[in-house]
Amino acid sequence: MYSCVFLSQSHQDTDSVVSSVTTKVKGIALINSSELGEQIWDVADYVISPEDDESFFLMTNMIITPNQTQSKCAEYPTQKSVCTSDMNCTKGFKDVQGNGVQTGRCVQYSDSEKTCEVSGWCPVEKKVEPPNPALLTDAENFTIFIKNNIRFTKFDFNKRNIPPNITRSYLANCVFNRNTDPNCPIFRVKDIFEEAQEDFQTMAVYGGVMAVQIQWNCDLDNGSCVPQYSFRRLDKKDPESSETPRHNLRFAKYYKSSDGKDTRTLIKGYGIRFDVLVYGEGRKFSFTQTVLSVGALLSFLRVADFICDWFVRCNSKAYKKKKFTYLNENDLVSEQQHLETQT
Amino acid sequence: MYSCVFLSQSHQDTDSVVSSVTTKVKGIALINSSELGEQIWDVADYVISPEDDESFFLMTNMIITPNQTQSKCAEYPTQKSVCTSDMNCTKGFKDVQGNGVQTGRCVQYSDSEKTCEVSGWCPVEKKVEPPNPALLTDAENFTIFIKNNIRFTKFDFNKRNIPPNITRSYLANCVFNRNTDPNCPIFRVKDIFEEAQEDFQTMAVYGGVMAVQIQWNCDLDNGSCVPQYSFRRLDKKDPESSETPRHNLRFAKYYKSSDGKDTRTLIKGYGIRFDVLVYGEGRKFSFTQTVLSVGALLSFLRVADFICDWFVRCNSKAYKKKKFTYLNENDLVSEQQHLETQT
Amino acid sequence: MYSCVFLSQSHQDTDSVVSSVTTKVKGIALINSSELGEQIWDVADYVISPEDDESFFLMTNMIITPNQTQSKCAEYPTQKSVCTSDMNCTKGFKDVQGNGVQTGRCVQYSDSEKTCEVSGWCPVEKKVEPPNPALLTDAENFTIFIKNNIRFTKFDFNKRNIPPNITRSYLANCVFNRNTDPNCPIFRVKDIFEEAQEDFQTMAVYGGVMAVQIQWNCDLDNGSCVPQYSFRRLDKKDPESSETPRHNLRFAKYYKSSDGKDTRTLIKGYGIRFDVLVYGEGRKFSFTQTVLSVGALLSFLRVADFICDWFVRCNSKAYKKKKFTYLNENDLVSEQQHLETQT
Repeated sequence: MYSCVFLSQSHQDTDSVVSSVTTKVKGIALINSSELGEQIWDVADYVISPEDDESFFLMTNMIITPNQTQSKCAEYPTQKSVCTSDMNCTKGFKDVQGNGVQTGRCVQYSDSEKTCEVSGWCPVEKKVEPPNPALLTDAENFTIFIKNNIRFTKFDFNKRNIPPNITRSYLANCVFNRNTDPNCPIFRVKDIFEEAQEDFQTMAVYGGVMAVQIQWNCDLDNGSCVPQYSFRRLDKKDPESSETPRHNLRFAKYYKSSDGKDTRTLIKGYGIRFDVLVYGEGRKFSFTQTVLSVGALLSFLRVADFICDWFVRCNSKAYKKKKFTYLNENDLVSEQQHLETQT
Repeated sequence: MYSCVFLSQSHQDTDSVVSSVTTKVKGIALINSSELGEQIWDVADYVISPEDDESFFLMTNMIITPNQTQSKCAEYPTQKSVCTSDMNCTKGFKDVQGNGVQTGRCVQYSDSEKTCEVSGWCPVEKKVEPPNPALLTDAENFTIFIKNNIRFTKFDFNKRNIPPNITRSYLANCVFNRNTDPNCPIFRVKDIFEEAQEDFQTMAVYGGVMAVQIQWNCDLDNGSCVPQYSFRRLDKKDPESSETPRHNLRFAKYYKSSDGKDTRTLIKGYGIRFDVLVYGEGRKFSFTQTVLSVGALLSFLRVADFICDWFVRCNSKAYKKKKFTYLNENDLVSEQQHLETQT
Repeated sequence: MYSCVFLSQSHQDTDSVVSSVTTKVKGIALINSSELGEQIWDVADYVISPEDDESFFLMTNMIITPNQTQSKCAEYPTQKSVCTSDMNCTKGFKDVQGNGVQTGRCVQYSDSEKTCEVSGWCPVEKKVEPPNPALLTDAENFTIFIKNNIRFTKFDFNKRNIPPNITRSYLANCVFNRNTDPNCPIFRVKDIFEEAQEDFQTMAVYGGVMAVQIQWNCDLDNGSCVPQYSFRRLDKKDPESSETPRHNLRFAKYYKSSDGKDTRTLIKGYGIRFDVLVYGEGRKFSFTQTVLSVGALLSFLRVADFICDWFVRCNSKAYKKKKFTYLNENDLVSEQQHLETQT
């Protein structure tokens, strides 16, 4: 009985998946920030690095530091940067957490605070909490179109996550739903978060990493090969920790001012890093594998037999001894008794 | 005979490949578009996201929407956006396929058409077919230099796709050719498309995804470990479908106008996403694996013996029983009966 | 004895790792170049493509060509581009190594040299050696924070490289050290190079590819599952070659000049490509695997027995023969002879 289950798997050779992914985000967001005013953002604005591969960053919140130029200014006040006189500042000192190289002077940051002056992009970024609620709260209605092409090299087998019978008009409007549209490869951000049991609005404020898992378990002998989608937060909060996970990245937009000077807008972008993780294996009948498995199974099943055999042989040796005894034909009755107990 | 073939593989342990890829595109393209005039583009212009890893996007065609600013304008006319009066437009509505947030007003898009006004980056992108022929038809003469470093961790084995005897001067001029230059890791785009049996000029117009496959099948016992290159289109057209596969991505270049206002040039770039897919396995003699395989094989080979054995034993038991019968020779009939019930 | 070692591994099923990586670089660099003057750079400046995934490019050196516009100018003098008259230049010729499309004219590049004129981004980039020492020598003090989340799908097991007991304040200050801080996932660039036995300052000049390897060998039966970090240069210099490996990429920053013309700053950036390579396997008790392994092992162990058996059987046949001989007792000598030839 167990042998059947065992052999149903073990007679097949396996290969791991080789995968290629392209992704495309769609959606319009209305943002309203004190620095920017009211703006409408589209995909070119909120997807940082316009690559369309298996990992992309959807910016949902940000701290903007506009009009930075290379100059000298007061560092943002922290435990390390506050000062009362030039004595507290070291010329040339570069704090890893800081925004520039100290000039050795202690200057006014604001009316009430003095900090060490730094040379670098000025004014410096403020170390503040990101806006709450997030700027791109609308992002939960965005959709993500995921195209996945897989290959099992050993079996020279290729497949896509878009079934051949799906039409372009269906793809233009469908949204993945585990019950009604399980084959639609377009996912609404909100649905992804619901399935992963995470709150989008919280994650939009501080950022995070979300996995879209595509599992391909393909039995190429019976032709079953359908992708299974699932969603999971990768930087999940530790239950015992009180700290919110964060995910952000810094980038800048560079401009030339009218006098030819380089200026930049520094953006500390909080957002969701989506990782499309593809895994699974293909299985196909293999003679070699069958020999290995059947052989091993038979061998295993013979263990009992093997042990038994040993005893039997020992006994049978005794038996053979006795057989000769029969030939002698004198103590026939006792022998018969022995034989009966033995069998 | 089969056993030999079987054991030639199965006595080895296997490990899957860990890979790192860098890519470098070279080439100059002359483009001529109505928006841009005649321009010469180099790698910094046509490779979007200047990353050099295993996946990159070579832009071959584009729809450019220059001088966009945050303002209000008529949406591009589609089934959903055309209107006759403000009644047809919903203030605050964001169409996923649209370009902004509707203001609720119905305005002139052109002399003949009225559409709902949107707030967003204006003027809006036109939903038109990409230029045909593509703007960067020259891209088929571009070359791609692929460096691949692999590792089989189990065996602590590293290798590169550039043989140690290849000189820098050879690399400066060679182009991969399956017959004459099989070791040159520089591939001409045209050749890739020819081997994949795809038409470059068609794919340049609408975009697509092309895989450069590098297979490493390494027998570390006899030292054979040479990469095999092959090419394959990943978003192949379905034979039964009349729709051309497309691949594009949107990105923007941001500027500050002289009055400090943000403007951008939106680019809907069509092009070839190249994916370098590396796979394969390393094999090396393993005592454990040999024990497993030889054991299983022997066990398998003994199946016949095993079955035979069983019969023999049964028969021999019967034989032995009979033997006794002969010895006693008096209660012959009862013995025979006993035997019949037993078997 | 060997059987025990053998079975300690082979009774487990294995799964390969599915991995997601995020990276974050921190540090301030003071650069001093003839083109730029003295500048302070932060992460937004020196990490090209603000993506935070398993592969990123830390620019450490560069050749800058500022203020390029689409126009016509003399090509940089090389063997192919130098000319004495228009006869040497071919209108429309695009050299793969060149900077534009030749116009067919031979013009002055400098007081002493004439080259073919090209149409393209002008002035053209100079083919010169990168600055030595590198511009961002400070980069060796940068730190890289690597977050890695892994999954063994077969066993539905997830883990991160940040132990749950690590606090945010520890993470804010710690630096990986194999002896004192083996669990800190923040790596100093200098330490990475020291462990990989590479000289940072040399590699900073010409660029290179460095792997940060994370190995997860997890025995899920006894709960041991800790990442092992190691570092290795991927484009290592061949011992027999005198050529220094190089790694660079070209990208541009685009501006609009005050008269609306497109200008760009072309950067040929040399630097370190960091590749976080994650591999390893999870093992867990599996009944199927145990059957396969025990079966195969037993079968193997029986080989000796099997061979022995054969002989024994042969002998025992002979023995039996002899036995009969004894019974017959007449042609004793001939029997003995037969036996001797048989064995």
